[in-house]
Amino acid sequence: MDPLKAAIGGIEPLDQDAVQRAKRRTEDLLMPYLALGRLHEISWRVAGIMGRIPEGLPRKVVMVAAGDHGVASEGVSLFPQEVTRQMVSGFIRGLAAINVISRHVGARVVVVDFGVKGPTEPSWLEASDSFYDMKVAPGTGNIATGPAMSRQQASEAILRGTEVFRREASKGLDIIATGDMGIANTTPSAAVISVLTGSDPEEIVGRGTGLDDEGLRRKAQVVRRALEVNRPDPRDPLDVLAKVGGFEIGGLCGWILAGAKARVPVVIDGFISTAAALLAVALEPRARDYLFAGHLSAERGHSKALEHLGLEPLLQLEMRLGEGTGATLAFVIIEAAVKILSQMATFESAGVSRGL
Amino acid sequence: MDPLKAAIGGIEPLDQDAVQRAKRRTEDLLMPYLALGRLHEISWRVAGIMGRIPEGLPRKVVMVAAGDHGVASEGVSLFPQEVTRQMVSGFIRGLAAINVISRHVGARVVVVDFGVKGPTEPSWLEASDSFYDMKVAPGTGNIATGPAMSRQQASEAILRGTEVFRREASKGLDIIATGDMGIANTTPSAAVISVLTGSDPEEIVGRGTGLDDEGLRRKAQVVRRALEVNRPDPRDPLDVLAKVGGFEIGGLCGWILAGAKARVPVVIDGFISTAAALLAVALEPRARDYLFAGHLSAERGHSKALEHLGLEPLLQLEMRLGEGTGATLAFVIIEAAVKILSQMATFESAGVSRGL
Repeated sequence: MDPLKAAIGGIEPLDQDAVQRAKRRTEDLLMPYLALGRLHEISWRVAGIMGRIPEGLPRKVVMVAAGDHGVASEGVSLFPQEVTRQMVSGFIRGLAAINVISRHVGARVVVVDFGVKGPTEPSWLEASDSFYDMKVAPGTGNIATGPAMSRQQASEAILRGTEVFRREASKGLDIIATGDMGIANTTPSAAVISVLTGSDPEEIVGRGTGLDDEGLRRKAQVVRRALEVNRPDPRDPLDVLAKVGGFEIGGLCGWILAGAKARVPVVIDGFISTAAALLAVALEPRARDYLFAGHLSAERGHSKALEHLGLEPLLQLEMRLGEGTGATLAFVIIEAAVKILSQMATFESAGVSRGL
Repeated sequence: MDPLKAAIGGIEPLDQDAVQRAKRRTEDLLMPYLALGRLHEISWRVAGIMGRIPEGLPRKVVMVAAGDHGVASEGVSLFPQEVTRQMVSGFIRGLAAINVISRHVGARVVVVDFGVKGPTEPSWLEASDSFYDMKVAPGTGNIATGPAMSRQQASEAILRGTEVFRREASKGLDIIATGDMGIANTTPSAAVISVLTGSDPEEIVGRGTGLDDEGLRRKAQVVRRALEVNRPDPRDPLDVLAKVGGFEIGGLCGWILAGAKARVPVVIDGFISTAAALLAVALEPRARDYLFAGHLSAERGHSKALEHLGLEPLLQLEMRLGEGTGATLAFVIIEAAVKILSQMATFESAGVSRGL
């Protein structure tokens, strides 16, 4: 059997019995019916994912997937390519925004090199409890002139994402988030989202780390050229990843699919993570029900991608950093929903009169 | 001097030096400029409120202000009036939604009786670290036929709110939230919001705990009658509180003003708390800059009230429970913003190349 099919196949539908139990318990909770709005739906879906109503979600993990992109040479980012590796060092040393937010919400951070340019630094390997060397190749090809990677490499990136999940799951986890780092990676993400949502690149391409109007126009042209040169087949997600994707996008796709297969709630972050989620759902449509959209990014095209997935973002704070920052902050909302369902008293247990 | 003026006067403008220091530090943070969107503005305002950039906001307090309402006899709520006292017992016993969410985010809950009907229960008084007996009177008058309370009582409710703040501040606090419990209290809140925003009651009145269309129409008529019978003076906030408000609304108003005076960030919850905030800002316009809107409630009219205050909600989860649930959940967002500003590395300290 194809190793990719073996790794990601077998995702099951949600446990509808658990959903029904959760809904019945919600009716009895000590509050007007459904008075906590979206928190209730969130808790029902977590019940359906896990097959039970957990007391909480204490073991939270965010994976920051890193990779470099040949298309950086087209001038689509304000930052030099070396920043990808510098930020990997920053994550490992606990200096970045995702580190601060993860400490704040009690999550652990895992940094994974799926395709960073240049050698693996010894200091990264020393951080063996938070760093994985899963490098498929040192950076993708320039999608404006050819494919990002081979089909074999695309498959390998996804498989390595599932391998990270397997190893982290062996340490114990209750919920995961997706994060990314890769200079220029909003460009391949925009290409993937354009193909999989059937949208014109103009509607999808955004300012990334802060492009001006001229930079934005150039970036949209680069995406358009990438689609013309590579002609990715929208019905073949692996082809889309290979031709216009990125190694970290493939890794995240594997992380998402492995989470769904293991019945773990998966919180996706912004633009890059949502490109990975579109690929994951295209490969295995049942994965969708395991996903929560952590936040709505300020990046143009993100709302369209979320609509395509049928996901409503939990937070709307105009964040556009990546690293998993929005998804990791949203852990707090999902865990609140779960605790309301499992820890609150009922009208009966509290001795409070019910409404009409 | 008028004791109310003495208690709530002297609120100062934000510390603009601290705001400027916060903005300068933000420019150096290890991320593309302003990439965390609204989190940055939040952190700047906290700096201006506190006059410094704190490491975090560990001591969080939510006050759940409780009171009963004579207008309950008009059939404006689905729940019997006795639920107010039953829920006060529930809060003290740690059984309610606000207790679960407060434990989740590490906040302490303070329950205050500003005007619950019936006697104070011995078990409440035994919970002396989390309960305050600040009862002005056992329930307001029916605003559909006369004033809610006297002008003297309105002033007293606000003063007692400031007294709760004073006592809690002596235990130590870094941020506070407002919460409420009072069967029928969306009705006086709608009346207060209608008067202070100059809106027709039809635009403001909502379904509360779950009224149907007929109940909604009746409730709007009750508010309209309350305004016709009482003719509250929109330029005199104390008159508005006395004629169509509630004891817990007055208590929250005092809590808010005392927080602003002490330079503590104040997170307001939903519909009832926002009515209290409108009164507070009408009494002392400088209080506005100390307020954060925790969430956008599902209750009609809430967005209009927030617009009038110039506040954008942090969460939009269609919650409509009260108790302070939305504001307390939003503590997490504000503290994340503060920690990003104070705990993240800069480009220089991390040795990462800057963008163009």
